[in-house]
Amino acid sequence: MDSVSLIGMISVITAGLTVAIGSIGPSLGEARSIAQALSAIAQQPDESATITRTLFVGLAMIESTAIYCFVVAMIIIFANPFWDYVAASAGG
Amino acid sequence: MDSVSLIGMISVITAGLTVAIGSIGPSLGEARSIAQALSAIAQQPDESATITRTLFVGLAMIESTAIYCFVVAMIIIFANPFWDYVAASAGG
Amino acid sequence: MDSVSLIGMISVITAGLTVAIGSIGPSLGEARSIAQALSAIAQQPDESATITRTLFVGLAMIESTAIYCFVVAMIIIFANPFWDYVAASAGG
Amino acid sequence: MDSVSLIGMISVITAGLTVAIGSIGPSLGEARSIAQALSAIAQQPDESATITRTLFVGLAMIESTAIYCFVVAMIIIFANPFWDYVAASAGG
Amino acid sequence: MDSVSLIGMISVITAGLTVAIGSIGPSLGEARSIAQALSAIAQQPDESATITRTLFVGLAMIESTAIYCFVVAMIIIFANPFWDYVAASAGG
Amino acid sequence: MDSVSLIGMISVITAGLTVAIGSIGPSLGEARSIAQALSAIAQQPDESATITRTLFVGLAMIESTAIYCFVVAMIIIFANPFWDYVAASAGG
Amino acid sequence: MDSVSLIGMISVITAGLTVAIGSIGPSLGEARSIAQALSAIAQQPDESATITRTLFVGLAMIESTAIYCFVVAMIIIFANPFWDYVAASAGG
Amino acid sequence: MDSVSLIGMISVITAGLTVAIGSIGPSLGEARSIAQALSAIAQQPDESATITRTLFVGLAMIESTAIYCFVVAMIIIFANPFWDYVAASAGG
Amino acid sequence: MDSVSLIGMISVITAGLTVAIGSIGPSLGEARSIAQALSAIAQQPDESATITRTLFVGLAMIESTAIYCFVVAMIIIFANPFWDYVAASAGG
Amino acid sequence: MDSVSLIGMISVITAGLTVAIGSIGPSLGEARSIAQALSAIAQQPDESATITRTLFVGLAMIESTAIYCFVVAMIIIFANPFWDYVAASAGG
Amino acid sequence: MDSVSLIGMISVITAGLTVAIGSIGPSLGEARSIAQALSAIAQQPDESATITRTLFVGLAMIESTAIYCFVVAMIIIFANPFWDYVAASAGG
Amino acid sequence: MDSVSLIGMISVITAGLTVAIGSIGPSLGEARSIAQALSAIAQQPDESATITRTLFVGLAMIESTAIYCFVVAMIIIFANPFWDYVAASAGG
Amino acid sequence: MDSVSLIGMISVITAGLTVAIGSIGPSLGEARSIAQALSAIAQQPDESATITRTLFVGLAMIESTAIYCFVVAMIIIFANPFWDYVAASAGG
Amino acid sequence: MDSVSLIGMISVITAGLTVAIGSIGPSLGEARSIAQALSAIAQQPDESATITRTLFVGLAMIESTAIYCFVVAMIIIFANPFWDYVAASAGG
Repeated sequence: MDSVSLIGMISVITAGLTVAIGSIGPSLGEARSIAQALSAIAQQPDESATITRTLFVGLAMIESTAIYCFVVAMIIIFANPFWDYVAASAGG
Repeated sequence: MDSVSLIGMISVITAGLTVAIGSIGPSLGEARSIAQALSAIAQQPDESATITRTLFVGLAMIESTAIYCFVVAMIIIFANPFWDYVAASAGG
Repeated sequence: MDSVSLIGMISVITAGLTVAIGSIGPSLGEARSIAQALSAIAQQPDESATITRTLFVGLAMIESTAIYCFVVAMIIIFANPFWDYVAASAGG
Repeated sequence: MDSVSLIGMISVITAGLTVAIGSIGPSLGEARSIAQALSAIAQQPDESATITRTLFVGLAMIESTAIYCFVVAMIIIFANPFWDYVAASAGG
Repeated sequence: MDSVSLIGMISVITAGLTVAIGSIGPSLGEARSIAQALSAIAQQPDESATITRTLFVGLAMIESTAIYCFVVAMIIIFANPFWDYVAASAGG
Repeated sequence: MDSVSLIGMISVITAGLTVAIGSIGPSLGEARSIAQALSAIAQQPDESATITRTLFVGLAMIESTAIYCFVVAMIIIFANPFWDYVAASAGG
Repeated sequence: MDSVSLIGMISVITAGLTVAIGSIGPSLGEARSIAQALSAIAQQPDESATITRTLFVGLAMIESTAIYCFVVAMIIIFANPFWDYVAASAGG
Repeated sequence: MDSVSLIGMISVITAGLTVAIGSIGPSLGEARSIAQALSAIAQQPDESATITRTLFVGLAMIESTAIYCFVVAMIIIFANPFWDYVAASAGG
Repeated sequence: MDSVSLIGMISVITAGLTVAIGSIGPSLGEARSIAQALSAIAQQPDESATITRTLFVGLAMIESTAIYCFVVAMIIIFANPFWDYVAASAGG
Repeated sequence: MDSVSLIGMISVITAGLTVAIGSIGPSLGEARSIAQALSAIAQQPDESATITRTLFVGLAMIESTAIYCFVVAMIIIFANPFWDYVAASAGG
Repeated sequence: MDSVSLIGMISVITAGLTVAIGSIGPSLGEARSIAQALSAIAQQPDESATITRTLFVGLAMIESTAIYCFVVAMIIIFANPFWDYVAASAGG
Repeated sequence: MDSVSLIGMISVITAGLTVAIGSIGPSLGEARSIAQALSAIAQQPDESATITRTLFVGLAMIESTAIYCFVVAMIIIFANPFWDYVAASAGG
Repeated sequence: MDSVSLIGMISVITAGLTVAIGSIGPSLGEARSIAQALSAIAQQPDESATITRTLFVGLAMIESTAIYCFVVAMIIIFANPFWDYVAASAGG
Repeated sequence: MDSVSLIGMISVITAGLTVAIGSIGPSLGEARSIAQALSAIAQQPDESATITRTLFVGLAMIESTAIYCFVVAMIIIFANPFWDYVAASAGG
């Protein structure tokens, strides 16, 4: 097993697991926020503008952690400096 | 075991696990949102338009994390740069 | 162990686990939505049309994550590019 | 250990685990739906027709994930393309 | 270790684990349904016919997942195609 | 390690684990049903006949999953086709 | 390591684990039933005869799963067919 | 490593784990029963005789599963048929 | 690694783990009983004698499972028949 | 396997897992805060300014732990001193 | 690796883990008892003497399981018969 | 594998896991405090000054445990005495 | 790997894990006691002296289990009899 | 792998994990105390002085377990007697 295939294998596994594990927290978290927002709207319809605005700010912050994971997975697949190095070495 | 079969094996496993693990969070999260939306509609039928609209925006955001997983799995199966490299090397 | 049997073994395992793990989240999630829908109908029978419609839209979205898993398992069993490659190599 | 016995072993394990793991989610999910349906009938007997109909649609969707698992297990035991290939190779 | 004993061992383990794991979900699920049915009868005795009928339909569906596991275990012990193949090969 | 002792070892382990794991779900499930039945009797003593009858039907169905496990364990210990085969081969 | 000591070791481990794991479910299940029975007696003292009778029937069914485990452990220690076979072979 | 020390090691581990794991279920189960009994006495002091009698019958049944574990551990340490066999063989 | 050090190592590990794992169940169980007893005294001070007496009987039964573990650990450290045998063999 | 590929592999895995695991806590934590904030606004609309301000301070502190993880992952990918050292050594 | 260092290593690990694992149950259990005692005092201040006395008896019994673990750890470190034996053998 | 790459690899893994695991507790803990603070403000707006002050003191203490983890990770990456030693040895 | 480095490695790991695992139970337990004490003070301010005194006695007992862990870790690092023995042997 | 790098590696891992695991309990515990304190202040503003004082005493005790972990991690990194010994031996 040479370096190229090792780094390749590891990159594939890591990219997949990163988005998979990284989807659990944000999806459950967003669900909790949305569920509470719907409950709050039903309880206090007059405040639905404030509630919706606060909800969207919050969803953006929660989604940011999912996006960190997606960004790292994309870096690992398409802009991986370690792969570039060993591929360059192997091709050199 | 040569590089080609190793990268192939790892890609198959990773693609499967990514969508499998990535389906747990979003499906439970969407269920929570929908359950609360139904409860809110039953409690405040007059607000069903606002509730449904907020629900659909939320579902879209939760579904996005499931879609990240599906996209990464598809990239790993059909547009895997590491596989392309080693297959090209093996065929070269 | 040659490449053909390795890729074959891994594909069998992955296909099975993908649908097995991928059935947990959606089935529990759909159950939660349905349970809440039934509770909402019992509480507010006049809104049963709205509740049922929202429920079915939601079930479709939750089912979509189960279907992603089933699709990936079918691709792995019947349209696996890595298997095709190594089988072609072995037969070549 | 030749390819035939390896693929055979893995297929046996995978078929068993797939239905075993795949029975957990749907059975618990169906139980939740039925329990809530019974509770709703006791609370609102006049809506028992609507409740029962919604319940059966829901059970069908939950059961579908269990059936995906059973189908994949049957494919793995009786219509396994990888086994057919290696058995043909071994017999060839 | 020849193929015959390997396939045999694996089949024994898989058959046992399949029914063991496959008994957890259905038994807990049926218990939940029955418990709720008893509670509903105590709350609304006049609806006991409807409740009992819905309960038995539900138990049948939950039991079906346990039966899938039992069927697969029986197939693995008494009608295992992989065992038949290797036993035929070993005896041939 | 010859085939006879391997199949023997595996059979012992599997038989024990099958009944051990298979006792968890049914015992907890039966307990839940009984507990709810007792609660229902205390709440609605006049319905104790209906409650007891429904309870016993339910316990029979839950117990059936425990019995599947016991049956499989007995088959593995006393009527194991794989053991019979290898013992016959070893003695032949 | 000859077959005799292997089968012996495995039998010791399995017998111990079977009763250990098999004690968890029944003991917790019986506790739940008893706790609810005591609560029901306190709530409805006039029904204590019915409650006690239903409780004892239930405890007998729950205890049956613990007894399955004990029986299998005793069979494994004192009437193990696999041990008898290998001990006879070793002594022959 | 000869058979004597192997069987000895395994017996020590199994005896310890059997009582350790076997103490979890019964101790938690007895605690639940006692807690509910105390609560029931506080709620209905006039029924304390019935409650105490039912409690003690129940504790005896729960304790029986702990005693199964203790008995099996004692058999493994002091009346282990497998150890007797290998020690006799080694000393013969 | 000779038999003496192996049996010694295993005995040390087992003794420690037995009391460590065996302390979890009883300590949590006793806590639950005591907590409920205190709550019952606060609710029904006139029954404190009955409550305390029932509590102490119960604590004795729960503590018995912890004592089984301690006794087995002490036997393993100071009266281990397997160690005595191998130490006698090594010294003989 | 030389040092360069080892450090590269480990860095890829660690970077992925760090952001993946590091997204669970913050996303669930932020969701809890937002849900409670929405509930508080619905309950006390006049205090929505204070509530929103306290919420945003809190979200910033929770997000900080997610950012620590992202920063460490970026350092590991793009400013890894250990990689720089071994790459310099390998190139030297 | 000679016997002396092996027994030493194992003794260090076991002593540490025994007190570490053995601190979880008692500390949580004592906390539960104390919390309930404080709640009971707040609810029924006139019974604080009875409550405190019952609490201290209970804490002593819970602490006893922690002390078993500490005693076994101290025996393992400072009065370990297995270590004494092998150290004497090594020095002899 | 020489010492330099080993220490490097271990340092990368440890730094990543330390901040990742170390983010779970503080983020969930801070969320709980903030959620309760928002609830308290909504319930008692006049005390919002006291509540906010107590909250910020508490957040600082909780954040301190996250900062311990970040500090240790930074020490491991940039001021690691073990790395300095082996790098000096390797370069010496 | 000689005995000195092995005992050293094991001691470092054990000391760290002992305090780490040993901090979980006591910190959660103390938190529960304190939380309940604060709640009791808010409910019954006149009994704050009794509550505080009972709390501090309880915290001392819970802290004792954390201190056992810290003491054992310090013994393992600075007064380890096994290390002293092997270091003396190595230096002798 | 010589002793120096082994002790170094183990020390790095242990230091990181000790603070990481050791941050979970205290941060959750402190959060629980603070949350209850805020709730108590909102419920009984007149007792805020007593509540705050009791809270700070409690936080100090909980933080002490986190500090034990940090102290042990610092000892392991900067005042490790085992490392000093082997580094002196290696340099001697």
